[in-house]
Amino acid sequence: MNVGVIGYSGNIFKDPIKSLASLCYDVGRIIAENNWILVNGGRDGIMQLVSKAVKNNGGHVIGFLPWEQEGNGYLDFPIKTGLDLNMRSFVLLKNVDVVVSIGGEIGTAIEILGAYSYKKPILLMKNSGGWTDRITEVLIEGKFLDNRKLVEVKQVSSIDELERILKGIEEVNN
Amino acid sequence: MNVGVIGYSGNIFKDPIKSLASLCYDVGRIIAENNWILVNGGRDGIMQLVSKAVKNNGGHVIGFLPWEQEGNGYLDFPIKTGLDLNMRSFVLLKNVDVVVSIGGEIGTAIEILGAYSYKKPILLMKNSGGWTDRITEVLIEGKFLDNRKLVEVKQVSSIDELERILKGIEEVNN
Amino acid sequence: MNVGVIGYSGNIFKDPIKSLASLCYDVGRIIAENNWILVNGGRDGIMQLVSKAVKNNGGHVIGFLPWEQEGNGYLDFPIKTGLDLNMRSFVLLKNVDVVVSIGGEIGTAIEILGAYSYKKPILLMKNSGGWTDRITEVLIEGKFLDNRKLVEVKQVSSIDELERILKGIEEVNN
Amino acid sequence: MNVGVIGYSGNIFKDPIKSLASLCYDVGRIIAENNWILVNGGRDGIMQLVSKAVKNNGGHVIGFLPWEQEGNGYLDFPIKTGLDLNMRSFVLLKNVDVVVSIGGEIGTAIEILGAYSYKKPILLMKNSGGWTDRITEVLIEGKFLDNRKLVEVKQVSSIDELERILKGIEEVNN
Repeated sequence: MNVGVIGYSGNIFKDPIKSLASLCYDVGRIIAENNWILVNGGRDGIMQLVSKAVKNNGGHVIGFLPWEQEGNGYLDFPIKTGLDLNMRSFVLLKNVDVVVSIGGEIGTAIEILGAYSYKKPILLMKNSGGWTDRITEVLIEGKFLDNRKLVEVKQVSSIDELERILKGIEEVNN
Repeated sequence: MNVGVIGYSGNIFKDPIKSLASLCYDVGRIIAENNWILVNGGRDGIMQLVSKAVKNNGGHVIGFLPWEQEGNGYLDFPIKTGLDLNMRSFVLLKNVDVVVSIGGEIGTAIEILGAYSYKKPILLMKNSGGWTDRITEVLIEGKFLDNRKLVEVKQVSSIDELERILKGIEEVNN
Repeated sequence: MNVGVIGYSGNIFKDPIKSLASLCYDVGRIIAENNWILVNGGRDGIMQLVSKAVKNNGGHVIGFLPWEQEGNGYLDFPIKTGLDLNMRSFVLLKNVDVVVSIGGEIGTAIEILGAYSYKKPILLMKNSGGWTDRITEVLIEGKFLDNRKLVEVKQVSSIDELERILKGIEEVNN
Repeated sequence: MNVGVIGYSGNIFKDPIKSLASLCYDVGRIIAENNWILVNGGRDGIMQLVSKAVKNNGGHVIGFLPWEQEGNGYLDFPIKTGLDLNMRSFVLLKNVDVVVSIGGEIGTAIEILGAYSYKKPILLMKNSGGWTDRITEVLIEGKFLDNRKLVEVKQVSSIDELERILKGIEEVNN
């Protein structure tokens, strides 16, 4: 199963990313332990922290990079898309089975909505800040992002709950 | 000046689009009267109604179409992008100076956020429904879509106000 | 009818482009006189010379530009594609009915082959140099670019012949 | 090192692909044995035969697929690009260090020229037919595809020669 992880880009030694390092480590760890593949945007911030955790736990990472960028040092397969930051996000989203969102500014918001439009289930890490929390204020019936009810958006409160839900999605997909 | 208009796709003879026909006509009319160019997604729904109004008032329309689609009958230049619905929206957004939003489901939401990420000013037609109204519930300081404060999002209450604001943007751009 | 014109990019005051200025002028003139729309890559070289001729004769030009480039000064609609030089060529090709080729290096060669793969008829201006002449050495049965025989590639010897052939294509398309 | 292999698409049980099965097997084998990664278009024909050989020899394959296609059964990472056949070829080419070409119709020709425009060295398997042989008839100075002399195109006569050249390229890249 391909697990997409999205969230803040930026310097990993500064907040808000710094404070999310432990969460990112755990997300990367369970991805590697379950032999899922991490698919992300290949750059800094949350992408870098989760990628590193996946690699340190023996897992695999594919990073979809904007333009001709090289990516952080934790990618098994850095994919140069030749597309700008936003357009490359949609190629990334086509190649995941589920999306996990951690904090995030406008790019993350675009990815949350994009995942929904492609009917990919979205798991929001509760209290991770930014658009991951903000989007919950505008959910229709507490779980949808528009009236077409394409797929469910769900808040997740702990790493154990995240692992349990991901395992459930994997089972359904098989 | 290139004015992007986004909003609901779908059957123009059914609500919620039907009820917005008069608003769409006025938006198209002022675009044509001011010699601005309408840039949109070239398909049905709000795109079709505004395009028709622009043509009926002697104006010009460029439609950025997904895949190899042909587009509605009111386009001076139908542009086949070869890209899916979402990715083509970002090409569209690169080619506008300002975005006007009318109602809309997830595709419109993606375009509102995309416009913001490209720093294109966004004008939301108040009470037109869908994501055009919903997005206002999550604005930071009443006008921004993330902490980077890239560009302002503004609610507009009438066609006269819309024309006044668009003229202001045109003046600044020149 | 949308007429795509491809060929050398580069400085218009230097050879090989300089020597092709008169041909470019005539190609632009007949496009404008027949109310066809010139579609090209919006940059310098052959693109610039033909665009200028079209504008000077009252015609219209759409330029498909790589990345976020602005284009030369003779475009009615400069389209920023957000794509690199090559990928943007394929968006350009999707939006033409026929391709006219004048000289050209590798980018032009890619466009000739791309046009063929999209089944767009290709008119090679004889003795204009570069890949426009070179490609004729490898035509199958003197007119095809592969065994699938998707569309015909034709050499054209004069501006009158070009106009006659373009008129014929327009008639068939209507 | 990422080795791109391009060539005929189509039914692997029919000529001209069938006759190239043994060559494809050997190309896949040396890629796997040298721990290079095969990068290709993920579909049928030469792509399928080489992918299978890589997998049977314990190697890894990334396939860049057009649209939302699923790909043949021998891909470790099938990448859905959301782009048409041609545009996806250019994303593929951005992610290789060298290109090996076997036979091929127009799509392969576009990839040979595209590789050259991105300055990726191109190795043509001699006597494999199609554009792989045809392109040699129009090489400038026997090795370039335009006057800019961006990168060398080379004919290769045997699998041993191919392996030797690829090892040389790997050494230079490290």
